[in-house]
Amino acid sequence: MGPGAALSMTETHVDSEFDRALRLAERSCTPGVYDADLDDGWFIGGALHGGYLMALCANALRHRLPDHPDPLTISAFFLSGGRPGPATVTTEVIRRGRSLSHAAVRLSQQEDDGRVERLRATAAFHDQDAAGGAFVCSPPPAPMPPPDDCPPMPRHLDRTDLFDRLDFRVDPSTLGWHAGEPSRQGRMGGWVRMADGRDPDPLMLLVALDALPPVTLDFGLDGYAPTIELTAHLRARPVPGWIRVQHTTRVLAGGYLEEDAEAWDESGRLVAQSRQLVRAPRT
Amino acid sequence: MGPGAALSMTETHVDSEFDRALRLAERSCTPGVYDADLDDGWFIGGALHGGYLMALCANALRHRLPDHPDPLTISAFFLSGGRPGPATVTTEVIRRGRSLSHAAVRLSQQEDDGRVERLRATAAFHDQDAAGGAFVCSPPPAPMPPPDDCPPMPRHLDRTDLFDRLDFRVDPSTLGWHAGEPSRQGRMGGWVRMADGRDPDPLMLLVALDALPPVTLDFGLDGYAPTIELTAHLRARPVPGWIRVQHTTRVLAGGYLEEDAEAWDESGRLVAQSRQLVRAPRT
Repeated sequence: MGPGAALSMTETHVDSEFDRALRLAERSCTPGVYDADLDDGWFIGGALHGGYLMALCANALRHRLPDHPDPLTISAFFLSGGRPGPATVTTEVIRRGRSLSHAAVRLSQQEDDGRVERLRATAAFHDQDAAGGAFVCSPPPAPMPPPDDCPPMPRHLDRTDLFDRLDFRVDPSTLGWHAGEPSRQGRMGGWVRMADGRDPDPLMLLVALDALPPVTLDFGLDGYAPTIELTAHLRARPVPGWIRVQHTTRVLAGGYLEEDAEAWDESGRLVAQSRQLVRAPRT
Repeated sequence: MGPGAALSMTETHVDSEFDRALRLAERSCTPGVYDADLDDGWFIGGALHGGYLMALCANALRHRLPDHPDPLTISAFFLSGGRPGPATVTTEVIRRGRSLSHAAVRLSQQEDDGRVERLRATAAFHDQDAAGGAFVCSPPPAPMPPPDDCPPMPRHLDRTDLFDRLDFRVDPSTLGWHAGEPSRQGRMGGWVRMADGRDPDPLMLLVALDALPPVTLDFGLDGYAPTIELTAHLRARPVPGWIRVQHTTRVLAGGYLEEDAEAWDESGRLVAQSRQLVRAPRT
């Protein structure tokens, strides 16, 4: 860690491994620039998990925006794969508003031939507790068996340290690909919670939204499917317990697919949505 | 217009009013910074149309990325309402890759008390003609009557110069709100083309994706519904003719809604998608 006092923006969870992995140290000489030490426990498929990197960046922005500590929407472009070790998080407050503030953030790491940007994101933050507005409509939770009736995630990928951080259960109706019989419907569903019992919050949701196996598997396409861009909308604060997630894809064409995720908490409320543009595996 | 030669990136359409409104002049002293003159013909609801501003920014990025002239995905945060008159478009190339390049762009205007940022966007560009990959799945066009059987847009808003730029036809099954009988299904559909006959292209699609009346009307909510963020995916190059657009909303709660758009060309191919986060009208 670099100079400056370590930040703990999620004080209710300070003993969790997720919050330890999100620790930041603001540089006293350059406010708004944070040093981080990317945790090697969040590997999946040869790089650090994109949702973990987004949560780290969102944690830095929370610190910059004390009046608006909750992410409402964050759009991240993934530029290169994150690696364990030192990283720099550079934040810029674009505008502090009455009900919303906007900020940008870049995550970079040093490589042999210079600094390399891993992720660049822009976000709007607000105060979830002050957000009002009528509840007009929201889809009911995607039907799937309860967590105890869903099998754990098959460990099909080479580097899956992520599966030690998260407790995953896969909707068996979306596991056909694992038996060589993908449904080709473009659907993946399951349950996610932190393995160490940490409660869900908006930062955890950024991980949960991109934690299931890629929908490409349900199309019978194995192989590397990198995310180009992911936009998350954090719609409500989740209650403790499991997060139910469903991914769907409508268009797989021209070498790309979109993957939409919806996440519900145990009360049945839709708490987050995301859409990502993914490069299809090259077959 | 500022100094520098005027750019015309869309040479096949130089006589169209849309392309005239997208003209940019790169500053010779500061490459990557462009002067524009925002056209007052694109007013709607008290500010310039967000899709027009996105198209202007995408036009500047096309100029910066000659090897990758086609937007693949662009995420824009709307910070304040655009006004007719001079504007500055500041671009930054983040990374030039083999199949994709990434860039950021800011649109700002001078106000009495200083420069104000209107829009900040990040994008990935590629070469649509070089993009490959199998066609696996894509939804058929949303069912609606042909354009000649759909009425023109009702002019319910105060400033709707946009309706002179575009030829709009509204799916009558999504016009109940205009008769005081909104369906409350969260759907809006219709057909869009440029009034002067200019063919659709990815820049025109950025306008078409956000041209229909807001879905909030179909929920019986009138009033200002500003876009916080909009991400567009440009999935294929459209053929000449009408663009068929459908908007849907699944979650209207907590003061916000998401609005998803899908656009098909006359060949029936899905050519673009977008999702925007919208602040619900305050009732």
